[in-house]
Amino acid sequence: MTIAQSTRERIIDVAKERFHARGYADVGIKEICDNAHIQKGSFYHFFPSKEDLALTVIDEFAEDWANGFVAEAFDPRLKPMERIDYLIDAAYFWQKSVKEKNGKIPGCLFGNLALEMSTKNDVLRAKLNAVFTKAKARFKETLEEAIDSGEIKPLNTELTAEAMLAYLEGMILLAKSENDPEVLYKLGPAIKTIRIESREHV
Amino acid sequence: MTIAQSTRERIIDVAKERFHARGYADVGIKEICDNAHIQKGSFYHFFPSKEDLALTVIDEFAEDWANGFVAEAFDPRLKPMERIDYLIDAAYFWQKSVKEKNGKIPGCLFGNLALEMSTKNDVLRAKLNAVFTKAKARFKETLEEAIDSGEIKPLNTELTAEAMLAYLEGMILLAKSENDPEVLYKLGPAIKTIRIESREHV
Repeated sequence: MTIAQSTRERIIDVAKERFHARGYADVGIKEICDNAHIQKGSFYHFFPSKEDLALTVIDEFAEDWANGFVAEAFDPRLKPMERIDYLIDAAYFWQKSVKEKNGKIPGCLFGNLALEMSTKNDVLRAKLNAVFTKAKARFKETLEEAIDSGEIKPLNTELTAEAMLAYLEGMILLAKSENDPEVLYKLGPAIKTIRIESREHV
Repeated sequence: MTIAQSTRERIIDVAKERFHARGYADVGIKEICDNAHIQKGSFYHFFPSKEDLALTVIDEFAEDWANGFVAEAFDPRLKPMERIDYLIDAAYFWQKSVKEKNGKIPGCLFGNLALEMSTKNDVLRAKLNAVFTKAKARFKETLEEAIDSGEIKPLNTELTAEAMLAYLEGMILLAKSENDPEVLYKLGPAIKTIRIESREHV
């Protein structure tokens, strides 16, 4: 790794943790520079603005998430609906582990930023929306496989996928507000009860 | 109304709209004073701090909400599960009407502040949690009535109520992130498919 790469990564790592724990507005460029041990000039060499940094953080976090616990959860060797259980479990254990370390549930970076920034910044909103669109696609593929294999009865996969993502984000919101990861443990399994029928199956 | 009452209400009205649209950190006391046409000294006569103002805004918003569209939705003349449909409809039309006026879906004041503030301020977190606890109780009573009248099969009313609230908050989160109230229209009816079984019914 070159020095430039490592400086850039240090900026991203510091920003990622702070945006996740405290949101976008609350974390300034100076704080990020101080904690990444760099000068402001060096920051602007890599990122024209805090917005650009946030876009990169969202991309990298989404990639880590997709290649990390989402890839593990959506293991093709598991039965399709078991992958969804696994995803909820992974979210539960992750929130729980951060709480054990920092005392606070950070919630979902994407959900946090979506509620904080959607009325204020259409560039960030579009980026977050793209992450949610990818997450919906994972749920949708899984539902399609579950239908094909006879694991569940036919339903509207597009809308049920979106409903499942909404439920996941909503559980994380309540867990954060109660600062209690057990919310995910108690409510999680019900994600599989959510159904939106296809027109032809009503 | 005395002059003091009307000054206090003006402060609350200005803060309510701005906290809802833009969050807590982004809205300063100076901005609130300027827009309520008062001096800073007058602000501190009514509220020792921005936190105290936010606590009052949350209380008043929760009360407006409970006495307004929630009271309408939870009309005892409706069948219990129809009240839940009505609540989702009311949330949909409200988000839609604000978007028509301001171009942006503001989302849920309580959900917005919960994700923004839960890691940073335990006083606000506790207040928001109390609002969610009340909302859960409304869902729970409704589910109990629906079971008693035979409208739905027995289930765990406590956990299903919390799951329904999670789903409502999650739908509003996705609607805000897409800036599209139709998310609530499309996903809303599925709230009634969510079920967490009681141990004795599994």
